[in-house]
Formats: sequence, structure tokens, C-alpha cells
Amino acid sequence: MNNNFFSDFTAKQWLDAEFGIEREGLRVDYEGNLSMKSHPSVFGDKKANPYITTDFSESQLELITPVFSKAADAIAFLDSLYNIAILEMEDELIWPQSMPAISPPDDEIPLAVFSGQEYDRTYREYLSAKYGGKKQLISGIHINFSFGTHLLEKLYRRSNSNQSFQNFKNELYLKMTRNSLRYNWLNIYLLGAANIIHKTFEENCVDSLEEISKEGYSNKEAVSFRNSNCGYRNKPMILPDYSSIANYISSINSYIEKGELKDIRELYAGIRLKSGGAYTTDNLLKNGIQYIELRTIDCNPFAKAGMKEEDLQFIHMFLLYCLMKKESTYENWQTESEWNDKTVAVEGQRPDTLLQRNGQNISLQDWGMEILKEMLDLNEQLQLPFGSILKDKIEVMKDHEQTYSFRISELCQQSDYIEAHLELAKQYKEEAFNERFRLKPYTDMELSTQILLKESIKRGIAFEILDRQDNFIQLTKNGRTEYIKQATKTSKDNYVSVLAMENKTVTKKILQHHRINVPNGEEVTGWEQAKEAIVRWVNKPIVIKPKSTNFGLGISIFPDGASKEDLIKAVEIAFAEDTFILIEEYIRGKEYRFLVMNGKTVAVLHRVPANVSGDGRSTIAELIANKNEDPLRGKGYKTPLEKIEIDENLKLFLQQENKTVNTVLPEGAIQHLRENSNVSTGGDSIDVTDLASNFHKDIAVQAAQAIGANICGVDMMIEQFGQETSPYCIIELNFNPAIHIHSYPYKGKERNIGYEILKVLGFD
Amino acid sequence: MNNNFFSDFTAKQWLDAEFGIEREGLRVDYEGNLSMKSHPSVFGDKKANPYITTDFSESQLELITPVFSKAADAIAFLDSLYNIAILEMEDELIWPQSMPAISPPDDEIPLAVFSGQEYDRTYREYLSAKYGGKKQLISGIHINFSFGTHLLEKLYRRSNSNQSFQNFKNELYLKMTRNSLRYNWLNIYLLGAANIIHKTFEENCVDSLEEISKEGYSNKEAVSFRNSNCGYRNKPMILPDYSSIANYISSINSYIEKGELKDIRELYAGIRLKSGGAYTTDNLLKNGIQYIELRTIDCNPFAKAGMKEEDLQFIHMFLLYCLMKKESTYENWQTESEWNDKTVAVEGQRPDTLLQRNGQNISLQDWGMEILKEMLDLNEQLQLPFGSILKDKIEVMKDHEQTYSFRISELCQQSDYIEAHLELAKQYKEEAFNERFRLKPYTDMELSTQILLKESIKRGIAFEILDRQDNFIQLTKNGRTEYIKQATKTSKDNYVSVLAMENKTVTKKILQHHRINVPNGEEVTGWEQAKEAIVRWVNKPIVIKPKSTNFGLGISIFPDGASKEDLIKAVEIAFAEDTFILIEEYIRGKEYRFLVMNGKTVAVLHRVPANVSGDGRSTIAELIANKNEDPLRGKGYKTPLEKIEIDENLKLFLQQENKTVNTVLPEGAIQHLRENSNVSTGGDSIDVTDLASNFHKDIAVQAAQAIGANICGVDMMIEQFGQETSPYCIIELNFNPAIHIHSYPYKGKERNIGYEILKVLGFD
Repeated sequence: MNNNFFSDFTAKQWLDAEFGIEREGLRVDYEGNLSMKSHPSVFGDKKANPYITTDFSESQLELITPVFSKAADAIAFLDSLYNIAILEMEDELIWPQSMPAISPPDDEIPLAVFSGQEYDRTYREYLSAKYGGKKQLISGIHINFSFGTHLLEKLYRRSNSNQSFQNFKNELYLKMTRNSLRYNWLNIYLLGAANIIHKTFEENCVDSLEEISKEGYSNKEAVSFRNSNCGYRNKPMILPDYSSIANYISSINSYIEKGELKDIRELYAGIRLKSGGAYTTDNLLKNGIQYIELRTIDCNPFAKAGMKEEDLQFIHMFLLYCLMKKESTYENWQTESEWNDKTVAVEGQRPDTLLQRNGQNISLQDWGMEILKEMLDLNEQLQLPFGSILKDKIEVMKDHEQTYSFRISELCQQSDYIEAHLELAKQYKEEAFNERFRLKPYTDMELSTQILLKESIKRGIAFEILDRQDNFIQLTKNGRTEYIKQATKTSKDNYVSVLAMENKTVTKKILQHHRINVPNGEEVTGWEQAKEAIVRWVNKPIVIKPKSTNFGLGISIFPDGASKEDLIKAVEIAFAEDTFILIEEYIRGKEYRFLVMNGKTVAVLHRVPANVSGDGRSTIAELIANKNEDPLRGKGYKTPLEKIEIDENLKLFLQQENKTVNTVLPEGAIQHLRENSNVSTGGDSIDVTDLASNFHKDIAVQAAQAIGANICGVDMMIEQFGQETSPYCIIELNFNPAIHIHSYPYKGKERNIGYEILKVLGFD
Repeated sequence: MNNNFFSDFTAKQWLDAEFGIEREGLRVDYEGNLSMKSHPSVFGDKKANPYITTDFSESQLELITPVFSKAADAIAFLDSLYNIAILEMEDELIWPQSMPAISPPDDEIPLAVFSGQEYDRTYREYLSAKYGGKKQLISGIHINFSFGTHLLEKLYRRSNSNQSFQNFKNELYLKMTRNSLRYNWLNIYLLGAANIIHKTFEENCVDSLEEISKEGYSNKEAVSFRNSNCGYRNKPMILPDYSSIANYISSINSYIEKGELKDIRELYAGIRLKSGGAYTTDNLLKNGIQYIELRTIDCNPFAKAGMKEEDLQFIHMFLLYCLMKKESTYENWQTESEWNDKTVAVEGQRPDTLLQRNGQNISLQDWGMEILKEMLDLNEQLQLPFGSILKDKIEVMKDHEQTYSFRISELCQQSDYIEAHLELAKQYKEEAFNERFRLKPYTDMELSTQILLKESIKRGIAFEILDRQDNFIQLTKNGRTEYIKQATKTSKDNYVSVLAMENKTVTKKILQHHRINVPNGEEVTGWEQAKEAIVRWVNKPIVIKPKSTNFGLGISIFPDGASKEDLIKAVEIAFAEDTFILIEEYIRGKEYRFLVMNGKTVAVLHRVPANVSGDGRSTIAELIANKNEDPLRGKGYKTPLEKIEIDENLKLFLQQENKTVNTVLPEGAIQHLRENSNVSTGGDSIDVTDLASNFHKDIAVQAAQAIGANICGVDMMIEQFGQETSPYCIIELNFNPAIHIHSYPYKGKERNIGYEILKVLGFD
């Protein structure tokens, strides 16, 4: 590589890359004991779920992100995966530390159970026997990284090389890997956070350490026992040949022939070279290197996801540095880097720790500062955005008390090893609950789509976003693919049934054919027709409305009937909105939303206009502010409920009752704040599923079936809600019913509508 | 009824009524022989087809309209029924006359065959034996008439009667019926048109007449032998008691007991009282009179449908008159009116023919003028719209040479009985062909819906218009109902597949997943992304276009590639239309529309820009005018093709080739007139279904299946059309493909797409 490589690329071109993260974490009970429970069955077949599975132990959860082109997105998704997983574990937590919590004896560690996969089990038994079960419980972060195709192609073109594109990529990744291994100790120092071990961990490790917090053992200088000999390291040491892909594979094959490795999977190098598909030497030889897997990063107990976004950004910068940095010609670089890694792992918190660079001593801090400053230079040269992250890392380099390892040992010393970590885990679980309705990084998509995606991910249904703006996704399981738009628009509803629901006249005719109650009435156009029709409706309870309307404009309601003159006025108002108007009987009672899926009423909701409840002390404005603090309330439909806004309408509404926002309400007084009951203007959604009568639930199902809908929101007026056979009337059928109002109501039980949709799709 | 009845009703309220028409007509060959062929099987089961069936004979077609609230609509629909029926009869015609064409001997007249309906056959055999087969061949028009519910209710309220609404209706219809029978002779005079008989008709009828045209027999003064004793009259004369519904039924029952009638169906009165449902005395007693059936009107050979709109309007006015007109108290009114009917039937063309009014002689003309003038007065009093029709009838009353009967005998005398009628029938068949793409009275609906409705009617699938404006219809057969919007939006397509086709990005991704060729390319937003993308497309064949566009705005095409600068300009142009733009490879070849239904390519079309072909003499303007005369070409999408308009665009296009609309084109020269190939701007549609290769037909099917569509228009670029394996590329999938372009192309075979849709719906 020459200088051409560094010029004439935009920052964006340099940043073209792909990230995937795997994060392990032990399931523990609220005392910190390793869980003896099975992997939650809701996650389905471990082998089939691409997002949530187990590693070595049945209790060792593994969260796996798809590939993202932005580091931030990969971390955000990992965080959401954490939320999805933890909320399915009623009396368990996810241990936030790479080193295990309270470990049972080796023979009591539950090995992961895979249905019909004998090999997986015998391999785990082999590993347990060779390395010890407790070591297998150590958890970590693996990062799968590749450069983007556009960047690789541009580099290839600039190289003017005679070799094939794949060979070019192989060499590029091999160089980057060699440098990454040379400088890997730096990552251990900066990101390591596994410097305390519980007393139940392997004796030979614990024995050499002192108890620095209750039941927590360390040497005070350590950074990551996971990266030390107490961690997961090959026995004996394996040093593959990274000079070419052919040499790499033949060196591994010779280790296998010697019986030192069972297969390539047993190679616990800091970096794995991956070809995609099954991880075998054959595949690697055939397809070449497609990405690398970094394996030395510890779970960060200070990050719910196990890793912070800035640390993945730092790794990205680190890899770019390793790509660019001229390699040294020092021959024994591999043993030297192994030595450096272990030294930093065990005594890296001592700034004057000596490392080896090209056979020469150099202090950890000096060398670290040198590398970080070179990275900072490179960052400026390429106009990359990592400046402030690098500066933060320089501070950590200068001051070991800012390392994660120092900070976690401090925390443990304040309470004890188990308690300190459980506190963090509990806090993360609470945070997960508070943001349970979100799926990062897809928070720009509709809530309903986020709900469906979350449920799919939980159940191991692979997703793809086909058009993000359009909320168009694809779900695949067992080779079957379903396309979904806006969560409820699926292949399971037929087109004309949707069109029929869109057309009020047609809906009414179809329901009438099926003897389902709809408001009596007629559709008229033109004054001539309207005048003729009106005479039939004088003094009857009646609603006059435009055939199509938004926001209820042009609607007049006469619950007790009206004179011909008043009806004429109402017709005028309706004609201002549409050339077709509907004259319908007025139906008594309250309106309820019945959500029907697959021939079953899965949820019933009542909507109440925005309101507050008095406490005898607070003003309406204060009560509103208080109510708005609910994390379910937000702005712009990104949360299940909307904040109540104090706008002109609201003030006017209060004014009609001779109140203002400064009025103090008596205790227990319910004050409505608007006329309309829309959730979008701060209304409350109240789940009443369990209170609805079976009669009305059946009617809703019949209505959906009459129009041929599998997913249908049925708006029903009911005189006496909950009473069998109470008079009812169906007002409207909705083909794209909001689901978040049922999933996360203001009051009442949260209904898992995402799962109901998956059942409609046949993914159950 | 008192004077209150006549005041305070608007014309519109008076006109509230419903009309249904049944019209019989014999199938004959091109020599006028009664057809010995079976009823065309495309019309399906005779008992199940509500629109097209047979009457007595297998060769006696019966066309039945649904009920319409406008007389004009009923006639228009009857006319369309005629078109539908005749176009299924390759070497046959529909005899336009009530009296038969060439009748075979009685025992050779094919009785109608009904599957599994033994009773129908034995009843027909009974009738044939009792009245003679030839009489049974006489055809006519039956009109089912009722007043609208609004009008009846208003009359009922005004009556302040103590009786029930149904009793009120019974009395109203009975009074109207009595008056209608009294004045029925007028209808026979004005509308009769069955005054000549073929020599092969019943001997005893023919024998008393003279041959006035070759093989045509008449007495020169006759109006309607169908209404004479040669017609279909009860033997012996039956005079039911019309004084009340109870008396009516008991009088009929006593005729049945006496053996003079087999059942109520054998009563050939001029008017039948109908209750809906099966025509039995039980039903009539239970449900009361719901409508009346007028049975004395002859087929009008001068109207394709068998009846003219103005004559049905006249009947409407006549019935209103009969409703209002004070009844005479003359006791023997029934025998008198029977006598009057037969007199007019046999000698009505003589103006001084004497009729009997309340036991007194009065000339036909005097009495007729008196009635028509009273009707004219009533028309004015109620402000009804029948004035000019009544004035026309007064002219016919004054001058018997204006009667249909006089006119048809004139025509026969000019050639011969058979020839004269066959000429009319042939003319109607040609007219039917020329308007084969229309379904009256639904010509305001989309052509595609008219096509589907026509095919449904033909096959006896009952239709209902759910929302006319919206082209939303319902089809029902064998108790199964399907809803359809705009002909191709059905229950057989799923919603998300439609949404996927609506979204070009999603369509492309899905087709790519299925390894179907689509243009390579990318979607970009913002200048940053666009600039980055462009560099990859310099000097490659490329199209740059806004993601969504109308009328091709903002599209730039570079078949031979372009410089970076040109691409930047093209991006600017595209961004003016949308914030998302598509950069796609340019595909060579021509574009074809493959119409896929139910996993089969049913039609392939090529569209050519508006053009004319020179003849060495005519100017371009003349050639356009000539091409525009094609009845398939119209304006405003009510015809399969559009007229070529000479607008600025067209002139500009010619100018670029140094031509004007006054240029004379050399013989055979094809002159394109526009850039775009849209049928909507006068382009030609050319059916190439039989020329397309199976390879490309299969690709189209695969594309539809990939996106899950049962009805799909696949737009495909093909380099070498017709050649197997020629390179192709799918440009777009359409979920609502136009079907009229395949049904009625400019050139090539007309494809029965209506039937293909019915097959998709499972109605085959």
C-alpha cells in the first residue's frame, strides 16, 4: 500500500463498513446463582433463532445482531435484544460481567440442549473435559467486522494489482489482522472489565488472588482475567501462520493433525478469519476472507448491551489504523503479542508495566499514548469523526482509574462482587421494561412495526427491512417468507376486503347482507335528494355526516331528533365537506374497539378523552405535567400514548366549564380536557378485553368474517357494555387497526398483539 | 282517492317506480328457419341464469332485466342483453317479430330442455297439446312494474286509511289493473306490431288471411295477431274477479277446480298480479301484490331490444293515468275490454273501427284521442316529463300509417316477410358487434367493470352494483358471493402483494430474491448519496428517474452512457420531482405487457404511439380523422381506444420532422404522431399473445407468483420478442392492470379477459 491509498477518499467512503455483534451473558437468579432453568421456550429452537440462542451452557444466553452498516445501529439493536430477552425472564437477571457469578461444580453446569444435534452436545462435553466447565461459562463480546464493498472495490481499483479481487481482500484482511494482534493489548487495557473472579471460580485461579471485595478475588492490577491464563485460551498455545490464506489454513491443519485442535472452531485466537457459511477451513479456502471476528473484548458491566457505542466506534478506528499502519518486520511478533496480551490482562492497571515491542521493552503507557496519537493523526488526515472518542481513550491511557476494570473493582469494593453486579443487572431490567415498546435502531418506524419486529425477533423469525420509510418488512422462518406493511397489512387479508372496509357504503351493505346491525340510513348527493330524504328523519335520533371526512369535520349529531330546519342546516354543513353525505340513525351507548384476528377477538379497548384526576392540591396544568411523565407518553406517535398538550382547544374546552389550567381540582374529580377521545391528542386507552361480553366479541368476529378480514378493527357502539345481548351497532371496520393501543394501554392488561399477528401469519 | 292525492307531490315523487322487462325472441338461421340447435352452453344452466334463459321452446330465447328505477335504464340493459346474447350465436339471428318466422310442424318444435326439472317438461308438453306448439312460439314483451316505496308510503299516509299498508297497496294495484284492462286496447293500437303471419303458422289462422307479402299473411287492418284469437289466449275465456285480492284468488281457484286452468301460471290475462317469489295463489294471498306484470305488448321489430324507451315511458304514464282515473261503474267492463282488445288486434288500423265504452259504441280514434288528451292534461297537472311522448302518440292515433303495425307490413311488402325481418335482425347483430365493449346503462362505469359485468351476465352470474362511482360490484352464483372493485381488485389477491407491487423498491427486491431479472440500480436520496452513486455509472447505459413520477416527468435516458456532468444534470432533473431517485441500468429492446391470471399468461400486448399510415393522397389530418372513425375509438376512456387529438404536442412532434398535419404521406409510410405509446393519447394496442415465446410467458408467471399475485400486469423489456431465452428485464408489476386493452385491441385477437377474471374468482 502506498500513499495513494490515503488520499482522495471521502470520510464517508472510509467509513463504509459492516458490524455484527455477539454477546454472551449468564442467566442468574436474584442471588447470583447460575440458573438451572431451561432456556425460555418462547425463544424457540436455539439452532433456528438467529438472534437469541445459547452458547456452551443452557444458562449462557447469546444475543446476536444482524449486520449493520453503522456501529451505533449494531449497539442499539444489541441493546434491544437485551430488552427482549430479559423481559421474558421473570425471576432471573442477565449477569453483566464476563467472569461468571456463583458457579456450581463442573458436573452441575447445565450443558446447552440442542434438539437432535448430537454433535453439539459431544463437542461441549469434550470442551468441558479439556478446559473445565467453569471456564466455558466465561462470557464475552465478539465483533464481526468487514469493510463495505464500495470501499474494498475502490481500494482494489487504486491498488492496480494483478491479483484477483478476493486475493486482494484476503491480503488486506490478513495485514489488518496481523497489526490488530500486535496492538490487541491496547483493546484489552481500554475495554477490559473482567478483573475480579468469584470465589466459586476455578480454584487454581482464585488461589493466586486476594479477596478484594466479599467473595470477589483479584490482584488489584488486573484488567481482564478472561484474557489471562484463567480465561479461555488454547492448550497448548496455538500460533497460526497469518502470512497468507494458504499458509494460515495449512498451519491450522497441522495443529489438527497433531491432535492439538479438534477442528478450526477450537482455535481461540483473538481474531478469527471468516468466510461466511459454516466455519470450516474448506469454506475459508474456497471463499476467502469475507470478514473478521474480534473475540477479546469483555462484556462491559457499565453498558446494558454489554458494550458501549463509543467503544465499537473506537474498534472501527482501531481497525482502520491497523489497515493503514506499516507493519514491523520483527519476526517473533506473534509470541510477543501473546505475551503483551497476557501481561496487560493480569497487570495492565499498573502504568509502568513493561511490554515488548519488536524485542524491546516499552512501558504500557508510553506505547499506548504513541498508538493513540497516531490514531488521532490518522483520524484528522482522513477527516474521520472519531476525534473525541480517541481523546477520551487518551485520558483512560493516562489514568488507569478511568478504566472499566478499575471502576468495576471499585464498585465491588463498595458492596460485594455479587451484589454490585446484581444491582446493575436489576437496573438494566427496569430500563428494559421502561422502553419495552421500542425496538432500536428502528425507532423511526411505526410503533406497530416495532412491536411486530420485536415479537418476531424474540421467536427467532428472521426479519429484513424492505422499505424502512414505508414500514415494509419481510419475515422468514423455516424457509417460508411473509411480507408485511405497517404490521397489519399482510398476505392473509385479501385485497377487496380491504377496499370494502375503505368504503363505508359497501361495508354497510355487506354487513346488512349478513344481518349484522349497522345504523339505518341513506347516502344522498345533491340538494334535491337531500331535501327529499330529510323529511323521513324529522324528530328521529340522527347523525348527518359527509361520506368521507377527516377529524370529524362536517358531522352533526341529534341524539333527540331535530326539526326539518335544523336538519337542513346540518346537511349544508356536511355538503361543505363532500358531495356525498350520509344520513344515519343515532345509536346510543359508548364506542369500543374490538380487535379481531384470525376469527377471534383478541383485545377490546375503550378510549377516553384526555383527562386528569384531581388531588385537591394541584392545578390542572400541574396534573397534566405529572400525567405526561409516564414513559409511555411521548410526542409524534413514537410512544404508545401521546402527551397532553395545553393548546388553544384545551383552554377553550376548560373555559366552557369556567375553568383554566390554573384551576385546582378537588380530590378524585375527573376533568376531561377535550371533546374527542383520540389517543393521538392525549386520550387514554383502557383495555377492557376481559370485561366484554362474549356476545359482542362474537359479533365483532362475525363482522370481520362477513367482510372476509383476518385482521380487523371493529368499532362498535354498545348500550350496556359487558351485558350479553345488549343492543349494539357497528360503526366502522378498520383494515389497518392500530395495535400499540392494545399492546401498551394506559390502563388494563397489555396484550401481546405482535404474537397474534404472527399467528395470523402462520408463524406460531 | 280524492284531490289531495294529486297535489303536493313533486314530479320526482310521482315518478318513483321500478321496471323490469322480459323479452322473448326466437333463434333462427340466416334463412329464417327456427333453430334446431341447443341453447348456447355459454349461458349455463337455464334455470340458474337470471338474465338469459329460454321460454317454451329450446329455441325461444328469453332476456330478463333486473329491476331498474328508470325506464331508460331497463331498456338500455335489455338492449345490452340482446348484444350479449346475439354475439354468442355465430350463424343465427334473433327473430325481431312476435309472430314466428318459419315454424316447423308442432312435433318438430324443440321443447326447452331443463336439467333435472321433469315438471317443466311435462308442463310444456301439456301446453303444446292444449294450445298447439306453434302458438307457444309467439314471443312478446312482459313488463314488471311497481311504484317505489317512497311514493307508496306517501300515498298511504295521505290516504289516512285504517287499513294496513299492504291492503292499501293491494287496492291501489287492483284499481290500476282494472283501469289498465279497460284501456288496454290503446296499448295494442299504439304498440302492436304483430300483424303479419308466416304461411307456416297455424293453418286456421293463415287460412282466413290474404298473402300481402311473399309468405306473409294479413288482413291489412290488423295490429296484433298475438293479441287476437290466433295468439296466446286462454281456452275457454277466463275472467278473474279483480274486486279484491281475496276474490281474485278464489275466482282463479274455482277455474282450477273446474279444470279450465292447470294452475295460476296458465292464466294468460293481459295483466298478472305478482307477489314476488314463486308465482302461486298461496304466495299472493300471503304477501299481497308487490308488482304487476303487463303481458300484451308485442316485440317491436323496429327496436333492437324489442321495445323503445319512449314506449316504456308511455306505459309508465299510462299506468299513472290508470291509477288516477276515476273508474266507471259499468258492470260488464271485463267482457267489454276483452272484446275491445280483440277488435283492435284484428282491425285496429281502421280509424273508424267501433269499440264499446260502458255499453256504448265509440270509434277507436275518438276514444283514443280522449284518453291521450286526458293523459296530456294529467302530465301537465303533475308536471311530468311525458309531454312530447304523448304528443307523438296523438299523431299515431290520428294517423294509422304511423303505427308500428302499418310500418312493418309496408316493409314486408317491399321485400318479403322473412327477408324484411332478417334484414332488421342482421342490422341489429352488426350494431351489437359495434358496441360489444359497452354495457348499458353502466357506461359511466369503467370499461373494465363493464367487460366483467357483461361476461358475468352472459354466464348467469347475478350481479349487484355496490358503489357505482367506485366501480364496486358483487357477483353471486350458487350461493357464493365475490366482491370486486375495478374488475381486477378481488378477494383472490392478497393485500400485501398489492402493496408490494405499489412500491418499486420492494417489487425489485422480491423479484431479485427469486432470481428474476430486474434492472440493476440503486435508490438514492440527497446530493451526497447521488454524487457518490453517479461515479459508478459513468459511461454505462443508464436511466435516472424520480422514485415516483407521473407522465414520465423527470426521467433521463442514456442508452449509450453519459459523462459524469450529464449524469449530474439528470440527477438534478429527477430531484425536481421527488426526494428519492432511482439510478438503473438501461435495458435494450421493446416493452410488452404480459397479463397474468391464475398462474397463466392470458394475453400479451404491445403498445405503439399514436400513428397513421399514408396512402399517397391524404393529409395527416385526414388520415387521423379516418382512423378516429373506428367505433373502438372515443373520448374520455369510455371506449377501448382513444381518438387521436390534434393538439400542440402532436403539431410540435411533426414540426421536428418538418411536417405539418397538412403534409400528404406517401403510400404505406407509417407516421408516428407522439413520443409516448400510451393508449390514452391515441396509441395503438396490438395483441401479440400468440407470438410471445413460452419462455417469456413463463417468466411473467414466475414474477406474478414471486410477489404472490393472481392478477398481475407484468411490464417486460425484451430484446428479441418471440425468441426463446432472449434477454429480458421486468420493469414493473401492476396490480390493477387495464383489461380493455387486451379485450379490444386495435390489432390482433380480442381476448376474453372477463372470463379469465371469472375463472380467477372460481366462477367457471
